[in-house]
Amino acid sequence: MDTPGTTRRQLLTAIGMMGGTAALYQAMTTMGHASETQYKGSPDLTGARAGASVLVLGAGLAGMVAAYELNKAGYKVRILEYQNRAGGRNWSLYGGDTYTELGGATQHVQFDQGHYLNPGPWRIPYHHRTLLHYCKAFGVALEPFIQFNHNAYVHNANAFGGKPVHYREAAADFEGNVAELLGKAIDQKALDAELTADDKDKLKEALRGWGMLDKDMKYKSNLLSSEHRGYDRPPGGGVNGEPIPSAVFDFKDVVASQVWKNMAFFMNHEMQTTMFQPVGGMGMIGKAFWKNVAPMITLNAKVTKIMQDKTGVTVTYNDTGSGAMTEAKADFCVCAIPLGVLNQIENNLSGAKKSAIAAVPYGNQVKIGLQMARRFWETDDFIYGGHSFTSQDIALVSYPNYHLFEDGPGVLLGAFANGPGAFRLAGMTPEQRIQAALDQGSVFHPGTYRKEFQNGASVAWSRVPWTMGCCARWNEEVRKTHYQTLVALEDRIVLAGEHASYVGCWMEGALLSSLDAITRLHKRALEA
Amino acid sequence: MDTPGTTRRQLLTAIGMMGGTAALYQAMTTMGHASETQYKGSPDLTGARAGASVLVLGAGLAGMVAAYELNKAGYKVRILEYQNRAGGRNWSLYGGDTYTELGGATQHVQFDQGHYLNPGPWRIPYHHRTLLHYCKAFGVALEPFIQFNHNAYVHNANAFGGKPVHYREAAADFEGNVAELLGKAIDQKALDAELTADDKDKLKEALRGWGMLDKDMKYKSNLLSSEHRGYDRPPGGGVNGEPIPSAVFDFKDVVASQVWKNMAFFMNHEMQTTMFQPVGGMGMIGKAFWKNVAPMITLNAKVTKIMQDKTGVTVTYNDTGSGAMTEAKADFCVCAIPLGVLNQIENNLSGAKKSAIAAVPYGNQVKIGLQMARRFWETDDFIYGGHSFTSQDIALVSYPNYHLFEDGPGVLLGAFANGPGAFRLAGMTPEQRIQAALDQGSVFHPGTYRKEFQNGASVAWSRVPWTMGCCARWNEEVRKTHYQTLVALEDRIVLAGEHASYVGCWMEGALLSSLDAITRLHKRALEA
Repeated sequence: MDTPGTTRRQLLTAIGMMGGTAALYQAMTTMGHASETQYKGSPDLTGARAGASVLVLGAGLAGMVAAYELNKAGYKVRILEYQNRAGGRNWSLYGGDTYTELGGATQHVQFDQGHYLNPGPWRIPYHHRTLLHYCKAFGVALEPFIQFNHNAYVHNANAFGGKPVHYREAAADFEGNVAELLGKAIDQKALDAELTADDKDKLKEALRGWGMLDKDMKYKSNLLSSEHRGYDRPPGGGVNGEPIPSAVFDFKDVVASQVWKNMAFFMNHEMQTTMFQPVGGMGMIGKAFWKNVAPMITLNAKVTKIMQDKTGVTVTYNDTGSGAMTEAKADFCVCAIPLGVLNQIENNLSGAKKSAIAAVPYGNQVKIGLQMARRFWETDDFIYGGHSFTSQDIALVSYPNYHLFEDGPGVLLGAFANGPGAFRLAGMTPEQRIQAALDQGSVFHPGTYRKEFQNGASVAWSRVPWTMGCCARWNEEVRKTHYQTLVALEDRIVLAGEHASYVGCWMEGALLSSLDAITRLHKRALEA
Repeated sequence: MDTPGTTRRQLLTAIGMMGGTAALYQAMTTMGHASETQYKGSPDLTGARAGASVLVLGAGLAGMVAAYELNKAGYKVRILEYQNRAGGRNWSLYGGDTYTELGGATQHVQFDQGHYLNPGPWRIPYHHRTLLHYCKAFGVALEPFIQFNHNAYVHNANAFGGKPVHYREAAADFEGNVAELLGKAIDQKALDAELTADDKDKLKEALRGWGMLDKDMKYKSNLLSSEHRGYDRPPGGGVNGEPIPSAVFDFKDVVASQVWKNMAFFMNHEMQTTMFQPVGGMGMIGKAFWKNVAPMITLNAKVTKIMQDKTGVTVTYNDTGSGAMTEAKADFCVCAIPLGVLNQIENNLSGAKKSAIAAVPYGNQVKIGLQMARRFWETDDFIYGGHSFTSQDIALVSYPNYHLFEDGPGVLLGAFANGPGAFRLAGMTPEQRIQAALDQGSVFHPGTYRKEFQNGASVAWSRVPWTMGCCARWNEEVRKTHYQTLVALEDRIVLAGEHASYVGCWMEGALLSSLDAITRLHKRALEA
């Protein structure tokens, strides 16, 4: 932990103990507390030695931001990249693209022009300041990503007889029932030890207003609850304008639907509104970085060995075009290769570092894009962006946030699978995956899903040749044993990437990790 | 109520009584229940008599949609409009515009090009299908309206020592405390009459997950609660990547902040995501309607008398340009004049209708637009769109949903006042209103709000010459006594507008009301 943070925190704790919450809060706001980012602007890399050189391995965001900043600071930088493009997991698949996965299956993407699948990152939270900074600096146009949609569906095989319900209906009923039950408990004096009479009155007022309870503190099928969950017949105009309330669900079904997981999901710091996406696909970010570091990149360079000694770092790579083996040398090295791949590359890093590299588990996410002939979710279901969640393997159907209201086709995200579901989908051929996605997604749009389907594409990250996994999935145990070892500068080599961060699986983690890594490398370089 | 609806509802009630909730739900979904709109497509106006004529009074959305559809059906239509423009309350104020309110104060709007204030409607819910239909038909480009922003502020003079807090912090703490209290009550067997042992286990699991409770069912300052409310130091990259949790608030302050009102607001059917706004200002909708009915409109026509007899309707109007009094005659009349104005126009409607016209209360909303030199809420506060709520007169500050991330200025909505607060602001000069808005809005952005201010404009609806109020604010009592009388066709005249709907104050209400009115008028015309 950084000392200023710890010191301030200790001070705040002391204030809190002395003066209670209000005093603590005053102190916090006065002290400019409640930071929303670890981004502190461009890294301080002043005073680089003339001629000092750095090899960057991997032209994903972590590698490219390292190259960009180090080069700007005066270092001689070269990037080696395995693929024939830069961007790494920041990547969009467009019509005309070809993709071959581990196992050999090749897909020819057929999406209409202007439509795409983002196999990797696909949304940007408002507090990912580092990424937003570089998007602005590199001219990447952003548009809102519609994360939260009250009218999308929640489906759980164990609730509502296996039928999906609207998020708004289930969420309203969850809140209404929780409010009614807590109100009842208060009246039964169950919480008299916790709440004064005044507290109880104020909390009951809050529960009534929040939970849409009637004057008797009941949550019922009436116009009040319908104001949140939706109506049988919504308010209208003229003679038949009067609304007809909807019937609230059985609370057992509501709890069994696990809508509370979705409610918690939307409150998750990384998932909160406002979110963004680049206009034209997430891959626009990788392309913008690429443009800014292009002269430094050697593409089609498969790294096979990373060795350092007292004089520098030597990286051996294979030109995948010609097959020629070449050595590249530099004073220092930023290695931004995903750990699953790095683990297979010969190196003379310490045993502890090797153990850390081998220890971090990776996610196996599967994403499937489905092009539909028309945007029926908009015209028929009144769903514009957002996600319908399901307990099935596909986990969700997400509705595109671009070309809204248009007559033409749209590309749905037909699966964002994880865990066992992702393993099942990854085990299928690309064609079988599409069929599974159509089967499962039909639960939300039974009449139309298969009928409107035109073509699809899928990426199972466990089969991606250049990562062999989606992104780092640290657990507490592994973090405790290996994290600081993994991120520590080892003489002339430092690791960077989302795996070397607490913001795993996010582009922001890759960037923050890289900025921290090069700042430490720069200090080391000044000592050299 | 329409017979099919009632019949279905009666059937559903019967099914519910016989088979319980699950059976009811099955029946509901099977029967295509849970309608999200009263819009049923273009009105059926087939068979209009050749030469039948209609006078439409008022070129707001209600009047213009009536004219558009009646004309398409073959009626001879003419619209009389008091102002020198069509659109009515669908209206945006741009730089260069001049606006004179009742009382004589004139404002010269100075916003930079491309920026605007929407004095009236400003957001469109996904389920306002009628409006969305005409936007598409008339080529109005829509973009997302960012309604829900977890990072905007909540301010209440009676909580947190009068300091604003982030919505995410207060909402997370409200949910966490409610979950913990209900969990405690369950353990104390306070709800054993309502819940079986299995219910209790499942509900506790839900409360733990939803409320971010620890394994002991406690809501505390830790990384769990910080995942919802935000961190002291958020997760980052490299050596100092470890997050530091934030301190939860005192629950008394959380309840006193009335954040539960904001939470309920976001669950309100009309306020739910996804919402939209026209690109370039709400007034683009009025302009698009105008373009489609332009040849039928007589502008600058102040209606002074509306009389009907067995042969037709005669409307007397004053050409506000020349001062000439003119009579217009037609077989029928759709009167879409706001009730406060209509109430002052001589007419021979029935006494009951006149009473209804006089009885409906109107809102007195005040909106204030403030141009700031830079978008500090984005760069400094990480707020992109959405609203910061306050207990002060201004009620909220809303952040613009267009030109996001740009370096130039932005126009904030600096007030959306209602009730007593709106009366206080309406009583001020436009200049004083700006100062009040700057004083009050500074609570959210203390260092910057006044410093970055450039210019402003305000509309107090109680002072708008052509409406003398914002929109109909029906209450249950008035609705019961007067609604059906107000909307009833009276021989040759029918009223239309948001005031003749259950969707008061929304454009959708104006359109639905008008489509219903002309459908009934057409039936009457066929009888004539």
